[in-house]
Amino acid sequence: MSAFVHPFDPLTPEEISRAANIVRPLFPGLSPNFRVITLKEPPKTEMVAYLAKRLQGTTPTRTARVQVVVPGVDTAHALHELIVDLDRDTILDKQNLKGKHSYIDASYMKEVERACLADERIQTEIQKLNLPSGSTPCVEPWAYATDGINDMSSRVTMCWFYLRLIDNPDANYYAYPLDLCAEVSEKLEVTRIYRLPSSTDERIHDESRPFDKRRIHSTTASEYYPSLRPSPRTTTKPYQVVQPDGPSFKTRGNFLTWEKWSLHVGFNYREGITLHDIRYDGRSVFYRLSLSEMFVPYGDPRCPYTRKAAFDLGNDGAGINANNLRLGCDCLGHIKYFDGWHNTSSGTPLKLPNAVCCHEQDDGILWKHTNFRTGNAVVARSRILILQTIITVSNYEYIFAFQFGQDASIHYEVRATGILSTSAINIGDNVPYGTIVAPGVMAPYHQHLFCLRLEPAIDGVANSLQVEESVPMPMNDQTVHNPFGVGYVTTSKVIEHEQGIDLDFTKNRIFKIINEKEINPITGTPVGFKIVPCYSQMILSHPDSYHARRSEFGEHAIWVTRYDDEEIFPSGRHTMQSEGGEGIRSGIERRRTDNSNTSVRNENIVVWHTFGSTHNPRIEDWPVMPAEKMVVGLKPVNFFTGNPGLDVAESTQQQNKSVLVQENMHSASGCGQTSL
Amino acid sequence: MSAFVHPFDPLTPEEISRAANIVRPLFPGLSPNFRVITLKEPPKTEMVAYLAKRLQGTTPTRTARVQVVVPGVDTAHALHELIVDLDRDTILDKQNLKGKHSYIDASYMKEVERACLADERIQTEIQKLNLPSGSTPCVEPWAYATDGINDMSSRVTMCWFYLRLIDNPDANYYAYPLDLCAEVSEKLEVTRIYRLPSSTDERIHDESRPFDKRRIHSTTASEYYPSLRPSPRTTTKPYQVVQPDGPSFKTRGNFLTWEKWSLHVGFNYREGITLHDIRYDGRSVFYRLSLSEMFVPYGDPRCPYTRKAAFDLGNDGAGINANNLRLGCDCLGHIKYFDGWHNTSSGTPLKLPNAVCCHEQDDGILWKHTNFRTGNAVVARSRILILQTIITVSNYEYIFAFQFGQDASIHYEVRATGILSTSAINIGDNVPYGTIVAPGVMAPYHQHLFCLRLEPAIDGVANSLQVEESVPMPMNDQTVHNPFGVGYVTTSKVIEHEQGIDLDFTKNRIFKIINEKEINPITGTPVGFKIVPCYSQMILSHPDSYHARRSEFGEHAIWVTRYDDEEIFPSGRHTMQSEGGEGIRSGIERRRTDNSNTSVRNENIVVWHTFGSTHNPRIEDWPVMPAEKMVVGLKPVNFFTGNPGLDVAESTQQQNKSVLVQENMHSASGCGQTSL
Repeated sequence: MSAFVHPFDPLTPEEISRAANIVRPLFPGLSPNFRVITLKEPPKTEMVAYLAKRLQGTTPTRTARVQVVVPGVDTAHALHELIVDLDRDTILDKQNLKGKHSYIDASYMKEVERACLADERIQTEIQKLNLPSGSTPCVEPWAYATDGINDMSSRVTMCWFYLRLIDNPDANYYAYPLDLCAEVSEKLEVTRIYRLPSSTDERIHDESRPFDKRRIHSTTASEYYPSLRPSPRTTTKPYQVVQPDGPSFKTRGNFLTWEKWSLHVGFNYREGITLHDIRYDGRSVFYRLSLSEMFVPYGDPRCPYTRKAAFDLGNDGAGINANNLRLGCDCLGHIKYFDGWHNTSSGTPLKLPNAVCCHEQDDGILWKHTNFRTGNAVVARSRILILQTIITVSNYEYIFAFQFGQDASIHYEVRATGILSTSAINIGDNVPYGTIVAPGVMAPYHQHLFCLRLEPAIDGVANSLQVEESVPMPMNDQTVHNPFGVGYVTTSKVIEHEQGIDLDFTKNRIFKIINEKEINPITGTPVGFKIVPCYSQMILSHPDSYHARRSEFGEHAIWVTRYDDEEIFPSGRHTMQSEGGEGIRSGIERRRTDNSNTSVRNENIVVWHTFGSTHNPRIEDWPVMPAEKMVVGLKPVNFFTGNPGLDVAESTQQQNKSVLVQENMHSASGCGQTSL
Repeated sequence: MSAFVHPFDPLTPEEISRAANIVRPLFPGLSPNFRVITLKEPPKTEMVAYLAKRLQGTTPTRTARVQVVVPGVDTAHALHELIVDLDRDTILDKQNLKGKHSYIDASYMKEVERACLADERIQTEIQKLNLPSGSTPCVEPWAYATDGINDMSSRVTMCWFYLRLIDNPDANYYAYPLDLCAEVSEKLEVTRIYRLPSSTDERIHDESRPFDKRRIHSTTASEYYPSLRPSPRTTTKPYQVVQPDGPSFKTRGNFLTWEKWSLHVGFNYREGITLHDIRYDGRSVFYRLSLSEMFVPYGDPRCPYTRKAAFDLGNDGAGINANNLRLGCDCLGHIKYFDGWHNTSSGTPLKLPNAVCCHEQDDGILWKHTNFRTGNAVVARSRILILQTIITVSNYEYIFAFQFGQDASIHYEVRATGILSTSAINIGDNVPYGTIVAPGVMAPYHQHLFCLRLEPAIDGVANSLQVEESVPMPMNDQTVHNPFGVGYVTTSKVIEHEQGIDLDFTKNRIFKIINEKEINPITGTPVGFKIVPCYSQMILSHPDSYHARRSEFGEHAIWVTRYDDEEIFPSGRHTMQSEGGEGIRSGIERRRTDNSNTSVRNENIVVWHTFGSTHNPRIEDWPVMPAEKMVVGLKPVNFFTGNPGLDVAESTQQQNKSVLVQENMHSASGCGQTSL
């Protein structure tokens, strides 16, 4: 290889081409459809040794994971996986993934839409609707959420129908959901057509019911696209971030340093951003961080709405669907972009430009103290470094951001925005599992469940998970000295075996990832990082439902497992039409039953945090939703010997150049007439 | 009055002087010590009527609440309260507040320190300690937390001893806590001297134990003051906020408008910032918002540490202790400051300069959507308006900020920073209720419990509190259509009577403040705002303890009560050495027992949210603590007919002027040597 490629680097365009070239001859004359050509990350034991030797030891083999769909081999559309050694140009492993399905992508969705609209029976149904003149039906294809009804041996796509009332491709068609739905097969055939229930009960009362013209409403209420809207407010004055000496971060390739942090920025088609070998002041903190899965089950119990449940990573991909971030729109200040690389169906490299952005933000005050005797105040401002990606999955947007702090904290912030997925409802009706957001438009309740995957390496990879609670001391117990009833202590236990655990803020239950063998010289306790969780309701689907069986990670907020190179995804590697039993709980149960080693104490462990929101829409989420923030924190606990941000320089006006504002509203102005 | 004074305006300096002049003659020859001269806010019924008539009706009387301590009347130091009509220069009410005590302030604390150090017995004890040469003992006076031991008929101050090891008034004396303590009376007499327990048990083993020289450690570990520290890191490059057209907010006096918000900024010695008549687009949302109390009980069970429990508002005052905020240090961008006014002990006006700052911040993305068919993305950035105050209460700092959003949300953020209050501990010992942060320095566990007080006025003051939960539909119940087990619904109840209620994220329990008489035309449900709570452990002190009895608000996260002009403080108006029974729970119980009206449905109600942190110190909190954030949200729920931030203009590079960064680390650089 010409240029140095770090083992954590995503595949380069050249490597993607090479992998395809190695794989293609295995399927002579078959034009394999390349679904995935991605880095198979180096085995962790090899990589840890390599990092320990400061990259002087044996370099792990560059390896690609390739998935192809090949027509005509075995079944109509068989998915094959190949592990390719890029150093030796050989195939290391080849598997026919029978019964597994590849993810769904925008180009396939467009094919499905075309095929669906071209179907004569569909056109007949559309005729029956007697749609307003000038309007255009629009099909939104969704991955089929397993419900046990369809034969799962091939991929099925659900087509939900909407209407563009006005002739503009950016019109918000979610404002006009139709009560029509179709199933489309892998071969792009319409296999079934439904009229959808749209009243307070589950039944379809009138299959020939036309479009209710009373639903037509003002574009102001439903459009978000600027050219379709009245002029925006002009009261928001410009706000710019100026960094006269440039950013405080440095990058070379995917290696990034900022303040005392260093890390590698990875990226793949599925998880999007992955972060590797994260160190603070040279000390190892995390080996790998990523969002490993998310699941969005809808709460409408009426078939076929029960098939709305999206694995936005496993079925769609956070990498593939990453937005091309635009300078000055998605962030302020000095921005460094990282491109992602994926592949076309023919196996050539496909650039995903500006998939990740890196920039700094001011985050208010980091610390302050005023000596009340001298009146002397010292303030240090907090600067954070943000690595952000934004994905679009049909209607929704998710903004994922890792934030690094000068106090050695890491925060992971998710913002949910975009457009609600909607269903038609008869004017005047309502349902207990949805909100009416416009005439005839019901936004069903649903959950967003994210799973943040942590591979800790707190001063090394042999770590433990400790659960600590704050507990009152008994008051009138002769054996305990607590005469005034004000004492409380912490109790803690180290988790011995793989399991899922719930949060409990009423006990101040804290999850610490510790290295039991590294004792803090001052506190006398193991060094560690704690998880500051995002308190969220877990999955509401019945444990016997397909939704729950497919998304086991949604049962508990915290999971701890032994590390395994192949266990990256808490609902399994293949979520598309999965049938359950491939998730994190099943893995733990299997190992327990097998009498495999399930010890997680002083081991190479993985900690998974499930969080999210039970999103019962407000009308304020319509037609495009103000970002809903969810934040998870990772903070050092007795890892250092003091505040790691203590050496941040004092904040001064000389550096910050703020501007003093005087009273700026004149008595004669019309402002605030209600109050003055 | 010459200039127009709005009924919500804090007392002007002229009004403070006038009130003092009216009160002084009541105590001839006694030189009353003016503790409080503050606005007695207008009766709410009058004020609501006045606002409804757009300030054209009868203007409520300007009224002052005055508290004086008068030596020689009744008892040694009697606290009197006077209600003064400033329009008619008359006394409306006069009470001798027998058994109640005024707050503690910095000038009194300094007097106590002087008196304590001047005491001969104290000097003898200090001699016994055999302190390092060049060091200076330092006394930190604290309000005495009631424990039933001392006679509560007069005010007592606890004096905790520390050491300035080096000769600098800004040295961090909390790094050298001494095992010495004294009680000082109102008359500034030392009434008792203690040696403090400093081992794993409660006993004092050796009353003549000298200072252990092994505790002396490097200043780098314990000092935060810049001149006492090594040079700070130089890697953080400047970051400035530029607003070329100025800020988007306007002020005239205390009236503020920003985007579609309008409100009055109030301020008093006790609560600090108070916000009044908060409207969005002219519609009433909240009548008044404030932090109404906070309590910091410590978990060390050993007497006299059991007396460490601070009501930082009731005993100290968020207004009085507000920092003088400095341009370019505490905030960035264009800053408007509001001064506060208090009074001297002689009754003259005392300016608290720059007590509140007002500025804007960029808050990332407000909403975004990309149409996956056209590839067209629309992004609106989020601007927020911040009203911030920072208080210093001895060792700790609290940063309190109300944040207004363009999506009609309000967030209340608290950051806790400053220095841990510490105790001496023998080298080598440890305790289960504290963390060793430096040699011989134990930082005891404690809680910070805040009470945010909401006076809702959701389209008028007749409001209700609704509790909603998300509940799975039963799966195999013939009466419910949920064949696939994926359905869930919300259940809700409106609270009928005054009570305290707990949070429960496992049920997605949501608290909505609604106006049952105003129905959203689209959703068909009452208009409302929801509370996005801060999940926190409630008070750990035993229910029979003085701590718990004095801080009843710490029992439950949410309280709803009927509005009463006199019920502003959830632990009562007089917390100094209070004995319990004056808090929010007792008030509710009393009204229930009295058969008073306790209905809170469609009534003028108050909703209180208790939140905070169980702060078991990390060594990373030492010697000055990185800010710990706590956030409470208030968000419209079916209040509008769509996203209120939909009209925010699209974000553009033309306005934002961001800068593209290229790879900026050279291969030859020394950075990241561990990984490349």
